[in-house]
Amino acid sequence: MSSIRIVGHSLPNIPWQDKPAGEVLPIWRYSQNPVIPRSPHPHINSVFNSAAVAHEGKFAGVFRCDNTRRQMVLHAGFSEDGLDWKINPETIQWNLPEDVPVPEYCYDPRVCWIDDRYYVTWCNGWHGPTIGLGYTYDFKTFTMVENALLPYNRNGVLFPRKVNGRYLLFSRPSDTGHTAFGDIYISQSEDLVYWGRHRYVMGPKEPWESTKIGAGPVPIETTEGWLLFHHGVLTSCNGYVYSFGAVMLDLEKPWIVRYRCRPYLINPRELYELTGDVPNVCFPCASLADADTGRITTYYGAADTVTGLVFTQVNELYDYLRKHSA
Amino acid sequence: MSSIRIVGHSLPNIPWQDKPAGEVLPIWRYSQNPVIPRSPHPHINSVFNSAAVAHEGKFAGVFRCDNTRRQMVLHAGFSEDGLDWKINPETIQWNLPEDVPVPEYCYDPRVCWIDDRYYVTWCNGWHGPTIGLGYTYDFKTFTMVENALLPYNRNGVLFPRKVNGRYLLFSRPSDTGHTAFGDIYISQSEDLVYWGRHRYVMGPKEPWESTKIGAGPVPIETTEGWLLFHHGVLTSCNGYVYSFGAVMLDLEKPWIVRYRCRPYLINPRELYELTGDVPNVCFPCASLADADTGRITTYYGAADTVTGLVFTQVNELYDYLRKHSA
Amino acid sequence: MSSIRIVGHSLPNIPWQDKPAGEVLPIWRYSQNPVIPRSPHPHINSVFNSAAVAHEGKFAGVFRCDNTRRQMVLHAGFSEDGLDWKINPETIQWNLPEDVPVPEYCYDPRVCWIDDRYYVTWCNGWHGPTIGLGYTYDFKTFTMVENALLPYNRNGVLFPRKVNGRYLLFSRPSDTGHTAFGDIYISQSEDLVYWGRHRYVMGPKEPWESTKIGAGPVPIETTEGWLLFHHGVLTSCNGYVYSFGAVMLDLEKPWIVRYRCRPYLINPRELYELTGDVPNVCFPCASLADADTGRITTYYGAADTVTGLVFTQVNELYDYLRKHSA
Amino acid sequence: MSSIRIVGHSLPNIPWQDKPAGEVLPIWRYSQNPVIPRSPHPHINSVFNSAAVAHEGKFAGVFRCDNTRRQMVLHAGFSEDGLDWKINPETIQWNLPEDVPVPEYCYDPRVCWIDDRYYVTWCNGWHGPTIGLGYTYDFKTFTMVENALLPYNRNGVLFPRKVNGRYLLFSRPSDTGHTAFGDIYISQSEDLVYWGRHRYVMGPKEPWESTKIGAGPVPIETTEGWLLFHHGVLTSCNGYVYSFGAVMLDLEKPWIVRYRCRPYLINPRELYELTGDVPNVCFPCASLADADTGRITTYYGAADTVTGLVFTQVNELYDYLRKHSA
Amino acid sequence: MSSIRIVGHSLPNIPWQDKPAGEVLPIWRYSQNPVIPRSPHPHINSVFNSAAVAHEGKFAGVFRCDNTRRQMVLHAGFSEDGLDWKINPETIQWNLPEDVPVPEYCYDPRVCWIDDRYYVTWCNGWHGPTIGLGYTYDFKTFTMVENALLPYNRNGVLFPRKVNGRYLLFSRPSDTGHTAFGDIYISQSEDLVYWGRHRYVMGPKEPWESTKIGAGPVPIETTEGWLLFHHGVLTSCNGYVYSFGAVMLDLEKPWIVRYRCRPYLINPRELYELTGDVPNVCFPCASLADADTGRITTYYGAADTVTGLVFTQVNELYDYLRKHSA
Amino acid sequence: MSSIRIVGHSLPNIPWQDKPAGEVLPIWRYSQNPVIPRSPHPHINSVFNSAAVAHEGKFAGVFRCDNTRRQMVLHAGFSEDGLDWKINPETIQWNLPEDVPVPEYCYDPRVCWIDDRYYVTWCNGWHGPTIGLGYTYDFKTFTMVENALLPYNRNGVLFPRKVNGRYLLFSRPSDTGHTAFGDIYISQSEDLVYWGRHRYVMGPKEPWESTKIGAGPVPIETTEGWLLFHHGVLTSCNGYVYSFGAVMLDLEKPWIVRYRCRPYLINPRELYELTGDVPNVCFPCASLADADTGRITTYYGAADTVTGLVFTQVNELYDYLRKHSA
Repeated sequence: MSSIRIVGHSLPNIPWQDKPAGEVLPIWRYSQNPVIPRSPHPHINSVFNSAAVAHEGKFAGVFRCDNTRRQMVLHAGFSEDGLDWKINPETIQWNLPEDVPVPEYCYDPRVCWIDDRYYVTWCNGWHGPTIGLGYTYDFKTFTMVENALLPYNRNGVLFPRKVNGRYLLFSRPSDTGHTAFGDIYISQSEDLVYWGRHRYVMGPKEPWESTKIGAGPVPIETTEGWLLFHHGVLTSCNGYVYSFGAVMLDLEKPWIVRYRCRPYLINPRELYELTGDVPNVCFPCASLADADTGRITTYYGAADTVTGLVFTQVNELYDYLRKHSA
Repeated sequence: MSSIRIVGHSLPNIPWQDKPAGEVLPIWRYSQNPVIPRSPHPHINSVFNSAAVAHEGKFAGVFRCDNTRRQMVLHAGFSEDGLDWKINPETIQWNLPEDVPVPEYCYDPRVCWIDDRYYVTWCNGWHGPTIGLGYTYDFKTFTMVENALLPYNRNGVLFPRKVNGRYLLFSRPSDTGHTAFGDIYISQSEDLVYWGRHRYVMGPKEPWESTKIGAGPVPIETTEGWLLFHHGVLTSCNGYVYSFGAVMLDLEKPWIVRYRCRPYLINPRELYELTGDVPNVCFPCASLADADTGRITTYYGAADTVTGLVFTQVNELYDYLRKHSA
Repeated sequence: MSSIRIVGHSLPNIPWQDKPAGEVLPIWRYSQNPVIPRSPHPHINSVFNSAAVAHEGKFAGVFRCDNTRRQMVLHAGFSEDGLDWKINPETIQWNLPEDVPVPEYCYDPRVCWIDDRYYVTWCNGWHGPTIGLGYTYDFKTFTMVENALLPYNRNGVLFPRKVNGRYLLFSRPSDTGHTAFGDIYISQSEDLVYWGRHRYVMGPKEPWESTKIGAGPVPIETTEGWLLFHHGVLTSCNGYVYSFGAVMLDLEKPWIVRYRCRPYLINPRELYELTGDVPNVCFPCASLADADTGRITTYYGAADTVTGLVFTQVNELYDYLRKHSA
Repeated sequence: MSSIRIVGHSLPNIPWQDKPAGEVLPIWRYSQNPVIPRSPHPHINSVFNSAAVAHEGKFAGVFRCDNTRRQMVLHAGFSEDGLDWKINPETIQWNLPEDVPVPEYCYDPRVCWIDDRYYVTWCNGWHGPTIGLGYTYDFKTFTMVENALLPYNRNGVLFPRKVNGRYLLFSRPSDTGHTAFGDIYISQSEDLVYWGRHRYVMGPKEPWESTKIGAGPVPIETTEGWLLFHHGVLTSCNGYVYSFGAVMLDLEKPWIVRYRCRPYLINPRELYELTGDVPNVCFPCASLADADTGRITTYYGAADTVTGLVFTQVNELYDYLRKHSA
Repeated sequence: MSSIRIVGHSLPNIPWQDKPAGEVLPIWRYSQNPVIPRSPHPHINSVFNSAAVAHEGKFAGVFRCDNTRRQMVLHAGFSEDGLDWKINPETIQWNLPEDVPVPEYCYDPRVCWIDDRYYVTWCNGWHGPTIGLGYTYDFKTFTMVENALLPYNRNGVLFPRKVNGRYLLFSRPSDTGHTAFGDIYISQSEDLVYWGRHRYVMGPKEPWESTKIGAGPVPIETTEGWLLFHHGVLTSCNGYVYSFGAVMLDLEKPWIVRYRCRPYLINPRELYELTGDVPNVCFPCASLADADTGRITTYYGAADTVTGLVFTQVNELYDYLRKHSA
Repeated sequence: MSSIRIVGHSLPNIPWQDKPAGEVLPIWRYSQNPVIPRSPHPHINSVFNSAAVAHEGKFAGVFRCDNTRRQMVLHAGFSEDGLDWKINPETIQWNLPEDVPVPEYCYDPRVCWIDDRYYVTWCNGWHGPTIGLGYTYDFKTFTMVENALLPYNRNGVLFPRKVNGRYLLFSRPSDTGHTAFGDIYISQSEDLVYWGRHRYVMGPKEPWESTKIGAGPVPIETTEGWLLFHHGVLTSCNGYVYSFGAVMLDLEKPWIVRYRCRPYLINPRELYELTGDVPNVCFPCASLADADTGRITTYYGAADTVTGLVFTQVNELYDYLRKHSA
């Protein structure tokens, strides 16, 4: 087994469940899934694609909570243990600087601690989908800044630190609809306002992701590179199937793919993944990692309706990833 | 709580189940759903989108019963209590006046008592879908008359009385397929043969109904207006979701929308709504109402496979509708 | 040669040009086509699909004049001889009774004298295309009445008299776009307000019209039936081609097709028909007929840009039609 | 009940379960379905559309086993009783004669004993889908030969003997994608290399199969003709539903349909058919038949994820088929 | 200049026009194009995609003559000089052996002398497009035989002799419509009835042919290989453009491409190519070749409306082809 | 007439032709159009969408020259008078800094003098269309720098000077194909490398541009604002029509539209605009302006095949624009 280590903080209270006996794959589901059910409040239709982070010894997060009008909105939430979540009943109200347009809708958030605060990126409605950017210190007040990119874009995910003096942002250029294409790019910035030096990371390659792919949680820094979970979409003879897999990216030039796991890691198999508002979806949005133990816990949206949890060990995952890389 | 009252008859034996403890929403499912299972007879594939009415102290109805050839046909059915239904094994045979064409297919019936008989409207196959019209006195013999409208149309629903001396008919102009558009109109007639003075009622507005909408059961007259349940369709990134909501229309000019409930009332959540011939469908087709108690019981098709039942109180629903109207 | 005669008025000053020597087909183009060029005024982009009639010993008409914003609007126009036209620079301003909605756009007009006035039908923008209806006595003031039919419909064409006590209207049910289907129906009315007793006339049959068809000019009454020119659309491997042909309908039940000419009569061949805003269009909208001589002169839109003229003799056309009927 | 008999061998150990009490339809599911679950090995995503045959007193087969990369590959498998299957963990490795191209992918296999060996046909990736052809004597070594047909084709199924001196092959000409069309043809060959004398068998007819149809298992010879199970696809307002039915074909000219069962026999109803990688699929690929008892046992793919089993008696099925034939 | 020579007969009366002064490209148009105008008879809409051959010291051919019903039919025609053509007014009537189905439509013929007769291949309507096959000795009586291939196929073109003891046939597998794909294959046969040993020749490669390609005239045998003209289709931002180019194929294994000309040879530039029933089409269907002089004269359809002629010299063309091959 | 003046240089030798007598519109075509024909060299298929500028007392430019492979490539060209152009036979060879990817294709260039050099922007092939950026001093050597924006984007147009200390760039976010949407945005940069502070300028509004719009030539600074010509696309019932119009943008915040001309200025009317590789296209790419006289001369691509020229006077155009603004 490899000696890879997570570069980061201890998180001794990371939500965790040991691997079931007999399981040979490196990632396994939480036995109490869905960890967050669909309607924590009567006017909330579903909670999924959730961005949980460690916060002040506990956990906090930003959640996609489609309401019963089926508006796509964001709520903050808090948890003592990362398993039992209190979702705020009211949506996040953004402080908006002058000239920053009011979001038409917000979905699929990611939260990333950089420097001194939590940055939030999400798919932001502004003449179509683009990458909204904001920040919070406490998950109580939230401030939005300039949209990072032009429309049409989705799955904007920040790196947790500057690389070579520049902030990095994954994104997936898109169009106005759900057209069947999507590759992952990295854009660079010196100030989180102006973005350039765009680099191509990767596109669909394996059948399970052959329609489109997008970055998942904030990448995890390891001694061997940036570990990125990404979702991929297969178009069957009758619809989409969203699974997720993993890649290891170069530490200094993370647009270089060191290893890419050819099989998916998680695909829709459980009833809460197979049925719901969008059948057959497993969509990862946030990972917690404990540098001491190498534990990684990942929240993923299931069927665009509820939130599931999966667990892995960084060294076990890395071995699997290398072994099954092309 | 408002003083709204249903304008109509007593229906003391309305099928009913009290609201579960802890439920805060104004409408709730029957605990024994699906109230009608998919195959009452071996050659019937499914029973859904069902038009039940009170009849001679008991209940009768016209049911969409796709057969195992997957032809869309109508059957009559009877029930002592509105819960336990005997569906006739044979389809309805229409008496056809000269020149009235034989239906190619019949689906999504509604039944409406006007004047002295039960009128049936349905989506009728005649060079494409249009609004078939017929009547019965006893649910034993049925007579078809002229198609009310030109193709292509669906979801034709009569009002239970003339308004300003004219019969009124909701419809949803469509095309030859299942193209993603659909608004509700009202057409007027002095004789149920010639229709004109078409009025626009409403189109998609909320996200949950953003693809298309259509009238549901025969509207219920109340002291505050016509209460209409309507279905709405959302196009997710991977298919349709049919939910239903409610509006209150002006009594004299029912093309004027007084209140429109922004959230949906019922959306697909139960396994019998999430899976079946068409996953993710809740499609209301008939309501029973008791003027004495304000109880309203609504039959809806679930997953185009079985029939479900939901209950509400008119005043509770009206308060919710007003509170959540735009 | 047959003894068919036009039932109607003399029109001794009908615009006319004799058949060119050597021509064997029963219909021929005006040698000075296009009879109306594209821009009679600088802000008019094109004049086509034009509805000319005899009026007070001269000629008048309603013209589709897309302006240089490419709005679809109607203009009145006048001519001494039916060849040299003065198009009004300003659009028709409709007098609108209460409740009749302001047209969003108007195109493809037909004009039909019935009883005591000129009725105008056109494709009217009201939540999508439907059949607008209005009238004029003098081509100076115009009054709009209720839309005849629900959306979505196009090519509404009135009969020049009641048949069996009812007004008759051709139409072509459509949808919100230019989807590739279209059949001709007749609707009936006792008062031009309420319409019913819808009858199916015909759908695509020959390859040249295999995508969709629609009624052309107001039908011409003859001793053998109603003569209708209709356009038909062929979808080639790379776009549409609009040609036109003719049918003879039963006098009493004009939804019965007596003869249907299998070949087209006119198809796009001249440069002004092959090129323009919509290449490959010949679209007839108005015919003049002289009962004395059997002459029929038809105005047609060419390439959705200009107006052309073709001539025929009723008996020659009828013989050709019968000979080439299926 | 008819005196029809299966023409073929005894198979006394055919997997079997008696008809449940009260069942009136001629075909019934195995109570322990799915008979093969989705992941016999960790890297296998699903096992379905399976081609089982009797082999040396036991059972063997070729299985579509999509792996966790979602590649479509074939595995051999063995069973003592036809119910409990051991699927080989490694894919079939084809011996490839010179010039025969390496398959890009392989799916939906059928296995057919002819003369002295087991022939395998499958949907073979070669510039698009076409009909791959190979053989084995022992399910250990497999040899591929020339592709039988040009792309684009699917559902190639051999007859178990020559008819009139020629090998026969069902196929379903297709295109590069999953476009909504598909009819069944028979092609003939004297040497299994060159194919010609193509005959049309049948296309969609009933609503349950109105989008496309394809041959299922190797046809079963009976005293009354060739019994063919075939799948058919219905396009609902929101996706495909795959059911299956049966036809009886002429013994000498099997492109002549003697009887065609108008209702489907099996459609998606159980949770393992309604949910999975492709919801709502029942797709038959292999039948076992016992000439002594008339028992027929059919393996079918469920939801493109697992394998189910259904049972019937040839005479009962034949009576049903004749009774419900058009 | 290369020493390539045509392998074949002298054709001293080949229609010919010397290269215009100043022309640097190796192929040039006939100055009197279109050589065949659109309507040689009043009921013929267009003559294009024409298969002319040398015949008894003069010229004969099979022509696609869409009639004024826009049916796609074939006519025979004759010419003294290959320039002035007499097209028969009546269509070819096929003698049909038992079991050979009546063609639903016939288009895009090619004529190929093999052994002792002229074989005709064409796109034949039989449940969709496939490759019809027939023969004539004299262009007066024509006999059809079995369709060569299963639907859906187009552009079937025979080789003028057996290669390695087998007849060879180019084809372009297609689907039921004009979907945007198409590669060239070769199928082999020992008897012109059963076809197999299918080989892939080539697919789209250059931008001018990036949507689909198909074989053009019967290939011309040269000392350096088989010279094949092929058409290719580019999809612009607003429609298709059909141009044509050339390849040199291996003499013994003609599925091996020796040289492939990267630029097109002829594209739509003249008004008769730019406008007509299908704008922007140059589609070659027949070449005449004179072994003595190396002259090659090619007939091509222009705008699916008329027929054009282009000229080249085999050595000049071959040099250009080699120079511009990838 | 207004006192608007062009802010910029004198260009006394601007190519010019006076307004024809009788013309009432403010813009008119060059009588010798097309000013650049389609094939200046045999291997060039077409020259259009051309970016001409004043250079050293004469004229130079960058031209889209699709070659006869139909590759989209750029050529430099020179002219003494702006009318008679010498296009280089060879394509522009870009000097490529490390990491800047080789363009897959280049089309629709614009050239803009800023500070000390000519910047070139174009639609650059890099995993789809994006905005390529490069520069030249002399039209002999060209250097490419980082792509300005992420894919998918088209119609990138620089402003001729910094505004408020930032470079400005129009663009039209797009997708991988020619999907029917497109709005104009402005992005800002301090260094031409990193771009942000994206602002929305405008989307389709008038019918003539109702499908999509894009910026045309480099905007012209005037005393009243930035004058921008833009193209707009109308989707007719059978294809696209590209016309162009003009807007006046705020000098300081050019995302604010001061005036927007509701009619188009130029639409396809001449044969060289109506026919060619893409019928019905007028696409402006470059303007020359003379501050002394107010003359503006604009080059536009016609039918994606040749280049046309139109003339206007700034004050006349501005009056027209204001008069016809919404």
